[in-house]
Amino acid sequence: MSSTSMLGTLLTLPEIAATAMTRDDASPIIALSSQARSKGYEVVCLPLTTDSWKKRWTEMCLLPTGADLAADMAAEKLAEAWRTKPYFLLDEVTITQLEEAEGVTAIASEWLELDASDDWALQQELAYAAYLNIHATILPPPRNREHVTSYARAVNACLKTHPYMHLSIRLPIYNPTVLEGHLTPLPDSMSPQLLGSLSPTPSTPRLVVSDDRSSDSPPTNLDATWEMWDVIRSICDYNTRLTLTLDLTPPLPVNSGFLSKWKAEAIRYLFLPASTFIANSKGYPVLPKGTQSFIRASMMASGSTMCQHRPVIILSGANQGLHALGGELAYSQYLRHIEKTSPAFQALNTSGTVENFAQGYQDYLQAPLQPLMDNLQSVTYQTFEQDPVKYHNYEEAIYHAVLDWPGDHKIIICVAGAGRGPLVARSLIAVQRAGRDAHIYAVEKNPNAYVTLQGRHEAEWGDQVTLLFGDMRHIEVPETADILVSELLGSFGDNELSPECLDGAIRFLKPDGISIPSSYTAHLAPLSSAKLFNEARIGKEEKNLETPYVVMFQAVNILSGDGSSTNGRCGPQVQECWEFEHPRRDAVLDQRGLPLTNSHNARSAKLNFFIPHAGVLHGLAGYFEAVLYGNIGLSIHPHRKDRISKDMLSWFPLFFPFKEPLYLPSNSELQVSIWRLTNQRQVWYEWHAEAFLNVIGEPSLETEVPLPSPRSANFASGSFFSSPPRNTPSPLFDASAANDTSSFTFDRRVSVDSMVPPGPRLIKIGHTSLHNPGGRSSWIGL
Amino acid sequence: MSSTSMLGTLLTLPEIAATAMTRDDASPIIALSSQARSKGYEVVCLPLTTDSWKKRWTEMCLLPTGADLAADMAAEKLAEAWRTKPYFLLDEVTITQLEEAEGVTAIASEWLELDASDDWALQQELAYAAYLNIHATILPPPRNREHVTSYARAVNACLKTHPYMHLSIRLPIYNPTVLEGHLTPLPDSMSPQLLGSLSPTPSTPRLVVSDDRSSDSPPTNLDATWEMWDVIRSICDYNTRLTLTLDLTPPLPVNSGFLSKWKAEAIRYLFLPASTFIANSKGYPVLPKGTQSFIRASMMASGSTMCQHRPVIILSGANQGLHALGGELAYSQYLRHIEKTSPAFQALNTSGTVENFAQGYQDYLQAPLQPLMDNLQSVTYQTFEQDPVKYHNYEEAIYHAVLDWPGDHKIIICVAGAGRGPLVARSLIAVQRAGRDAHIYAVEKNPNAYVTLQGRHEAEWGDQVTLLFGDMRHIEVPETADILVSELLGSFGDNELSPECLDGAIRFLKPDGISIPSSYTAHLAPLSSAKLFNEARIGKEEKNLETPYVVMFQAVNILSGDGSSTNGRCGPQVQECWEFEHPRRDAVLDQRGLPLTNSHNARSAKLNFFIPHAGVLHGLAGYFEAVLYGNIGLSIHPHRKDRISKDMLSWFPLFFPFKEPLYLPSNSELQVSIWRLTNQRQVWYEWHAEAFLNVIGEPSLETEVPLPSPRSANFASGSFFSSPPRNTPSPLFDASAANDTSSFTFDRRVSVDSMVPPGPRLIKIGHTSLHNPGGRSSWIGL
Repeated sequence: MSSTSMLGTLLTLPEIAATAMTRDDASPIIALSSQARSKGYEVVCLPLTTDSWKKRWTEMCLLPTGADLAADMAAEKLAEAWRTKPYFLLDEVTITQLEEAEGVTAIASEWLELDASDDWALQQELAYAAYLNIHATILPPPRNREHVTSYARAVNACLKTHPYMHLSIRLPIYNPTVLEGHLTPLPDSMSPQLLGSLSPTPSTPRLVVSDDRSSDSPPTNLDATWEMWDVIRSICDYNTRLTLTLDLTPPLPVNSGFLSKWKAEAIRYLFLPASTFIANSKGYPVLPKGTQSFIRASMMASGSTMCQHRPVIILSGANQGLHALGGELAYSQYLRHIEKTSPAFQALNTSGTVENFAQGYQDYLQAPLQPLMDNLQSVTYQTFEQDPVKYHNYEEAIYHAVLDWPGDHKIIICVAGAGRGPLVARSLIAVQRAGRDAHIYAVEKNPNAYVTLQGRHEAEWGDQVTLLFGDMRHIEVPETADILVSELLGSFGDNELSPECLDGAIRFLKPDGISIPSSYTAHLAPLSSAKLFNEARIGKEEKNLETPYVVMFQAVNILSGDGSSTNGRCGPQVQECWEFEHPRRDAVLDQRGLPLTNSHNARSAKLNFFIPHAGVLHGLAGYFEAVLYGNIGLSIHPHRKDRISKDMLSWFPLFFPFKEPLYLPSNSELQVSIWRLTNQRQVWYEWHAEAFLNVIGEPSLETEVPLPSPRSANFASGSFFSSPPRNTPSPLFDASAANDTSSFTFDRRVSVDSMVPPGPRLIKIGHTSLHNPGGRSSWIGL
Repeated sequence: MSSTSMLGTLLTLPEIAATAMTRDDASPIIALSSQARSKGYEVVCLPLTTDSWKKRWTEMCLLPTGADLAADMAAEKLAEAWRTKPYFLLDEVTITQLEEAEGVTAIASEWLELDASDDWALQQELAYAAYLNIHATILPPPRNREHVTSYARAVNACLKTHPYMHLSIRLPIYNPTVLEGHLTPLPDSMSPQLLGSLSPTPSTPRLVVSDDRSSDSPPTNLDATWEMWDVIRSICDYNTRLTLTLDLTPPLPVNSGFLSKWKAEAIRYLFLPASTFIANSKGYPVLPKGTQSFIRASMMASGSTMCQHRPVIILSGANQGLHALGGELAYSQYLRHIEKTSPAFQALNTSGTVENFAQGYQDYLQAPLQPLMDNLQSVTYQTFEQDPVKYHNYEEAIYHAVLDWPGDHKIIICVAGAGRGPLVARSLIAVQRAGRDAHIYAVEKNPNAYVTLQGRHEAEWGDQVTLLFGDMRHIEVPETADILVSELLGSFGDNELSPECLDGAIRFLKPDGISIPSSYTAHLAPLSSAKLFNEARIGKEEKNLETPYVVMFQAVNILSGDGSSTNGRCGPQVQECWEFEHPRRDAVLDQRGLPLTNSHNARSAKLNFFIPHAGVLHGLAGYFEAVLYGNIGLSIHPHRKDRISKDMLSWFPLFFPFKEPLYLPSNSELQVSIWRLTNQRQVWYEWHAEAFLNVIGEPSLETEVPLPSPRSANFASGSFFSSPPRNTPSPLFDASAANDTSSFTFDRRVSVDSMVPPGPRLIKIGHTSLHNPGGRSSWIGL
């Protein structure tokens, strides 16, 4: 059973003051902390400084309007004196002993102004917190968008000065002013300071401490706070000690696309005041639907059993008696309840699910297997043999293929790449189920697995199976096969060199023989994930960003949306790159039946994605889908896997990282180019992306750019005999899938007039580097 | 006298064939080359392959529509056979001997298709060229915008495979189709192949060899070919072996802003057909005005005496007799003429000009001097003492300051930082000219220069001067001064720590005393320069991109334009960051008269620039302007230097590099943040930029972003007593300068209503990293 999320509580200055007055023990903090822990809170947050410090700081640093020059000079003298001797007076801080600070998350003074180039006060607080062995401090939000770069610069400076301190930026989940009049009024208890002002109207620096939201500020967008966060973490260069404290005070809409971007961000705390709860019919506190589902998603966002990857939910005001029934504990009990009843939590704790199988592997980067170059270990085979779905589907495919042969025909099956024998065993079962006569050749080049095969041959299979040792690209087989069964697929379909290996194995398939799989396709989607970006660049060498990784995605966000609103320029959320078919009917072969060069296995694709909400591109998610036989397949395509091979465990998606993040505004379009390249010794991928914005307005000679025509989205593959157009309906779905948008997009697209409308035009706004491993790390040896 | 640009000529296949027929010597190439050299052409370009190769390649690789499967298979068999044995037949190449290849620039087959993932043919040509010791090859242009990423990927692969080959991409200077109907028709001789098709309509790959411009292609913009180039060189990671061959066939408009971006690019060849020339009234060939001025600018673009930085002009068809008079030599003679009569060429060859003085230093990155930390060498003083303008203006300033004192007053002048004495000498002259009595104290902390001072004191100055050895921040001076003269300015004003040094020296200025300079300002502009970007990142360590450099700009383009069209959001092309004034009247001082901390010398600025034409941001150009006294000043501000201190040589601008290039579309806005930061030991700069696009259209809740209000452009500086608002009219200009746009922008800006119009909105589209040296290389020691 996975552990649940941590809960925390917020101590306030009045609470601390009240406790100090009613108790005679020396430390109200220790009393309150142990009270909080007895109520089940694992984290205690409290402000580091008191009103005395606020008063001194205000007198020194917040000058009057300049009308009184003498007063200004006096204040500046005090400030300069403080800067030369930057210490607190005893009554200016809440905590003074190590014991009080244990397990505490500090909250930096909310009234601090981090927008100026002067970050003395924050540095002083952090130095004091570090002195007390406090490892995490929550910072107040930037005051507005206009000052965010200065705020971020100051935070970056603090991260460098305090190398063991984690800083967490408090931000409202969106700018609530935009919804004023649209949704319920904001709760009274919401502190304007906490929410910050996202108004672009500049406040006069150093003059206004509290609410500087001006009533005439123009509306801002729903992405505004995320955009601020992106500036801050970018300026801090994705520092892993910098996280978010997301303030859930504003009411959340249900199922709104703009919230999903937070999933890809480093959220350390969720700030949840009791006032955000509503009363259910009985009077107990419950959360509004939108907030409920966001918290559920966030609790699982990282899904990892490592607790540091799950946000801590900080409750505040739970002891204020805002709700009629349940008392203080009702809030945390309710949160535990919604966590444990969430589908994601249950999947994680149910054996047989991918979520359960993948525990500990979420967002963990693994180098893809290279089973052609490396001989796999027995334990690797064992892991993948546990997949209950993959071998079931293979058996069904073989069964139907066998049935399609005449009843009196003795069927020759060749298992190319037999490993430890699971497909041989399934072939035998399929043949038996079909009531047919068959002989099976099992080809394997891994000398170690070949020992296991010999064991099973003796113990289980007998004369119905012939073992052959050798590489399927070179070995000679005694007779040609009716059915060639192989499982050489990678997460991206062809990335474990299935096309190249089957080019060799197809020699011993009869001209009318069947290959299982008969085809496979590679699919891509643009991805945002601060965590994966950081993981990929951790390695010392640049090559770490030139290779794709196998990853069980968790804290990621697919940036693309359905492109149907783009006049046919953009395809669906996840798009097909290319296809390989077996057997290849058009091959140019030498006398031995082998291709002369590997150029026919080169591929390329250019995909247009629609980006509905602003986000940062960190990489590409790669998936595959294979047709085994007829309508039996394997798929890790996020929209189709559940219908084709639900609960299949063997493949996590591929992650193609980008070296530098690429910012994508709302309603932009992303053109992704990807190549599968080959020479006589190697296969590798290269990838690149360009961003465009569709601008509507008067066309002007100086800025006019043509829209790409719909037909141009997919350029020629390297093969002379090109594959059928992508986005044709998948053979894996029958007619009942006609309302599946992704499989029918192509038809809509070709019907769009290829002429460009006069108004809108695409403007290029950015691009990534080309990722090209060349002859370096990430090619796959042939 | 600087050398002139190199000229080249293009040999064509028919020419070579004709020569082969009429001569009996073995090599028509050698004959034609030596002919060309005798006509003054230093470079000979010729196609590497013949029509025979085109024929074979076409048969193999350009398939019919797929109607005839057998024919397709036959062709594919030929192609596969060729790929396994990729050699030329003797008659498929123009050059076969080393002697023929000497000094030749090869032109790769123009009909090559680099858009597919298959670059076999180009690799074969380059390998053959490399075999013949040819070091530069010109490649045909990409066929259209849609295929440019694939083209670029192929070029990048070739650069890696052929590590000694320079590749130059031939591109028309703009897409001529956009001007059809607006300008004169295109010359007949312009090859559509050469111009490429910039139409976005996809041609069917491998089916169309020649002109694939479709007549219904939508209009493209003037930046289209530059945008293609940007994709290519970005995908090739700014490889220094990748250059441009800019085709000047299309007629050029006069004074069009979009042409200036080419100045910042690596142009190696300018392709100029004789047909682009027009006949003058006498019948001699001359160039149209637009082309003439573009060539003049390009010839000087790099201005360096190192010829490899100047584009070679390749004439073609000069021997076709297109113009009535002058013959073949008229074309090259005309080109020499326009080069030698260009103002830039003449400035370069006139002593006393900055251009002449700076020869060899163009685009060369120098670490800024740190005269406070390092004691300068005598030769450094000598170089700067040669400046005829700086000392003249200082003398004038001192002269007028002296005159402003009562006639009977014995004036005390203190020269703080006397160096080898030039300002002492000028002070003496000024005093003498004014007919006043004065005593001069000369303070210097460089022990070596102090020896020189002693020599001059004895030999020239006598009792009128008192020398004082020591740091002006610590030394005691016998009496306070009426006039404090210093020259501690860097290219950015304060970057050699003038503010900090004068904080110390101001102790020995009388309360009503005069500081010369009395103030100085720092100015910035966003800059594009592929060369400077590459130079700055050459260093092995990342810190090379965290420090500003002193650079004599040459191959650069200032990206900003006048922002007056942006409703007051953006300022002028070059914008002021901050100001320092001396003496500082508001200082908080200790008993010795020194400031308690250096926090008052922190500064910050946020500047909004308008970007009229698409470009790539590589860094910021930094300038300074100083008021010495009254209306006498020093300036390297590009728009004002000629009026304030023309021909002053002592300061090149500063270059603040960015780590990653930032793409800026046409009509975008750039917000630059820059900070001058300080602690007790160091001063440093940090900088950052964000890009926005002003989108006009229906506002939508999901995408709405507020425009920054005009007042927000400049946020608080670190000083409590902030400087006057920037962009106030400079005291260096009198009322007659009222029509100078840059100095009066502020007035226009404050009159703009700060409310945001409902329609347009700014969308964030990208940002740079923060450049923060922190405690590393580029701080300046106090």
